[in-house]
Parts: sequence; structure tokens; C-alpha cells
Amino acid sequence: MRYQLYYWPTIQGRGEFIRLALEEAGADYDDVARGAEGDAMLRLLDGDEIEHPPFAPPFLQAGDQIIGQTANILLFLGPRLGLVPEDEASRLWAHQLQLTIADLLTEVHDTHHPIASSLYYKNQKPEALRRAHDFTGTRLPKFLGYFERILERNSGEHVLGDALSYVDLSLFQIMAGLRYAFPRTMKALAPAYPRLMALHRSVALRPRIAAYLKSERRLPFNQQGIFRHYAELER
Amino acid sequence: MRYQLYYWPTIQGRGEFIRLALEEAGADYDDVARGAEGDAMLRLLDGDEIEHPPFAPPFLQAGDQIIGQTANILLFLGPRLGLVPEDEASRLWAHQLQLTIADLLTEVHDTHHPIASSLYYKNQKPEALRRAHDFTGTRLPKFLGYFERILERNSGEHVLGDALSYVDLSLFQIMAGLRYAFPRTMKALAPAYPRLMALHRSVALRPRIAAYLKSERRLPFNQQGIFRHYAELER
Repeated sequence: MRYQLYYWPTIQGRGEFIRLALEEAGADYDDVARGAEGDAMLRLLDGDEIEHPPFAPPFLQAGDQIIGQTANILLFLGPRLGLVPEDEASRLWAHQLQLTIADLLTEVHDTHHPIASSLYYKNQKPEALRRAHDFTGTRLPKFLGYFERILERNSGEHVLGDALSYVDLSLFQIMAGLRYAFPRTMKALAPAYPRLMALHRSVALRPRIAAYLKSERRLPFNQQGIFRHYAELER
Repeated sequence: MRYQLYYWPTIQGRGEFIRLALEEAGADYDDVARGAEGDAMLRLLDGDEIEHPPFAPPFLQAGDQIIGQTANILLFLGPRLGLVPEDEASRLWAHQLQLTIADLLTEVHDTHHPIASSLYYKNQKPEALRRAHDFTGTRLPKFLGYFERILERNSGEHVLGDALSYVDLSLFQIMAGLRYAFPRTMKALAPAYPRLMALHRSVALRPRIAAYLKSERRLPFNQQGIFRHYAELER
């Protein structure tokens, strides 16, 4: 099966969680909006040509099926790519963790856009300062503490089961993004979360992920994505 | 199977999406935190007694399994309660819609808490006014337009398949909550979304839902929940 991924072509964003799973598995896929068929994504979103239109990117085409919502796409891909255990309980647990990662990601986004996604950062900067202060001081340690504890309970190396899952890949992306967006905060917090730091390092060293990160397929972090670095948003 | 639902005992909140599914199916369940074992929820969240601790309520106990994240709980319950078609594609589509409902719900919450959940509304009121202005003017019509279009494509009566699903129940709850929180806005918007309005009415008339809504098991909307009515947040 060759997959078609549809996502904004200039940012890692939510699409990156899907890309990492496809890359680790060595799957065949097209990153459609980055290719020659760039406007196909908007046509599918706006038009009437598909039965189950998604609300927003990313979405994945698998044969004649179109699947939206990042965590839902990973729920679908996980067993097909061998990135989650087979039994239902493990799959639900993986998905539960992925949804918690999605919640964290929304809070990261809202540190620079607490009022409206349609407004520039500069037009919501005072609000962003307040929200980011709460995020770095309260919410972020709560999320990181939770995932650290889950890793600790599961031997420390993987978040679930005894092999790499798509949740490990997503936690790698979270740590990478947080270190880009909040370098001072993360440097201060790092000693408290040794297992998350080690997971970040070990995923980056996996052969297919290392090759991907060095390739042009990996977009750099930038100031249009979900993870953005504004020095004033750090404590 | 008798289920145990764990959620904050004084608000509808995210727990209500689970309650509606359990009630419509006539399932056996305990709303644990509202009963004599009220502190069991916090014990499970804080303690080390369970293998897969959730990040936050609601969570569901089904035998020895504990499942967190609202949409994930409905993913689990849907087929067991007969509230979603059997095939994988339909289940993924239902779940995708449920995750989009969850996104909308987070945006509703953030209209009154755009800065921090840990602060009172009165301490983030100027920011709430700005965020609510964007929500009622831009985001809400976008979400409602999307769901109206999905209903229209699927014959208008149900959001997917040819029978009631848990997604219909969740959309009922969304419409009920929006009409409580934003009555003037919703009165003005209603004519543009006739199918959503009809779905709200028809779900309320289903015998088990009607009985539930009249019972003491249905908590009233209030100013501690996700849907709150602050007149100043309407246009």
C-alpha cells in the first residue's frame, strides 16, 4: 500500500507525527502538498469529491479511504506499520497516550496564539506572555512528569510494550519541538525528566529516523509552525 | 458488563459525552465520583495502583481495564453498546468526527479560560472577551458549518450510517451546551444550521435520553463546567 499524506507544505506541525511513523516503518508514501500536486489538498478539503471530508489537515489517503485527525491516522497506521502491539488493550492505551500528546500540542500552540489562530502573534503578544508563563510553569511540568512516570513504569526505554511504538516517535517529536521553542526552560527542566531525554536521544539515533532527519524531507522548525521560539515567552 | 465512570461529580463536562452513550444504550454503570466512593477517582489518578494511569478524568473502568480520554472511551464503548457500525472504516470515521467535536469543545472552554485553567474567569476576562469574539464570529460558524454539511451528505438525520451513533449523541450535547452558553449567538445562527437543530430536538426526544434528561443523573449546566454563560462573551 502506498499512502498519500496531505499537510501544509511549509511546517512540521501535526503532519510530522505521521511522517515520523511512515519514515520509521520505511513505508511508501507521497507528501502530496509538497509535490507537484500541491493544490490537491485544498481541493479535497473544499470540494465535494470525497465522501468523508476532514475538518482540517493532516489527512491520509489509503486506497479509497481518507482518514483525518492526527491521532486517528496513527490509530489506523499503527498496526499496519508494525508500530503498536496487536491486542486491543495495548492499542487503546497507545491511542490514549497519543491523545494526551495532542492535548499538550494544542497547549503549545496556544502559548503564541492564545486569542485567535487568524491573528498574528504580534497582535496577541500580551496575552501570549501570560499564557506562556502558565504553560512553562505549570502545564508543561505536569505533562512531562506524566510521561516520565509512564516511561518509568514501563522499564524506561519505551512508553509501552517492549518495542518501539508510534507513541515513542511522537514523544521524540514533542521533546525536539519543546527544545526548539523553549530552550532555556527545557535546559532547566531536563534533569527532572531523564527518561524522556534518553528517549529523545535514542529515537534520533534509529537508522531510518537519523537518515530522515538529515534529509530534505524533514522540514526545519520555523516561526510558522506549532513550535515557535520567541525568547520573551520563556521565564 | 457493568462499567464504572470516573468524572468530576459537579459538572457535565467531558464526562457527559460518555454518560449519554451509556444512557442511550441502557448500560449498567456507576457514576463513581458522584456516589459514596467519591474519592476513588483521585486515588486512582494519584496513586500507583493502576497499570495505565490516565492524565485526567474522565476515565472508564471495564473489568480490569482502565481507559482514558473521552473520544478513546467512546471508541471502546461504541461497538459494545451498539452505537457505531461494525466495519473499521465507519468506526474510524465516527472517531474522526468525535475528535473534531473534542477540538471544538476545547475551544469552547478557552473562551472563558484563554490564559490558564488554574485562574478564575475574572482574572482573565479581557482576554476572554477577545477570544470569545473570535470564537463566536469565526470558529463556531466554521465548526457548525462543517457538521451541518456532514449531516446533509448523510441524509440529514444521522451524522453517519443509517442509525443513531454516539457521534449524534455528542452533537446533541454540543448544541445543548452552546445554547446554554451563547443563547443570543445561537438564536442568530440557528437558521443556517437546520439539520443540527433538528438533530438536537430528535435526540432529546429519544425515550431513554428524555428520561435521563429529566432524572437527577443529569446534572444541570452551571458556571463551573465547560459550557458557561457569561453574557458579556456574546457579541
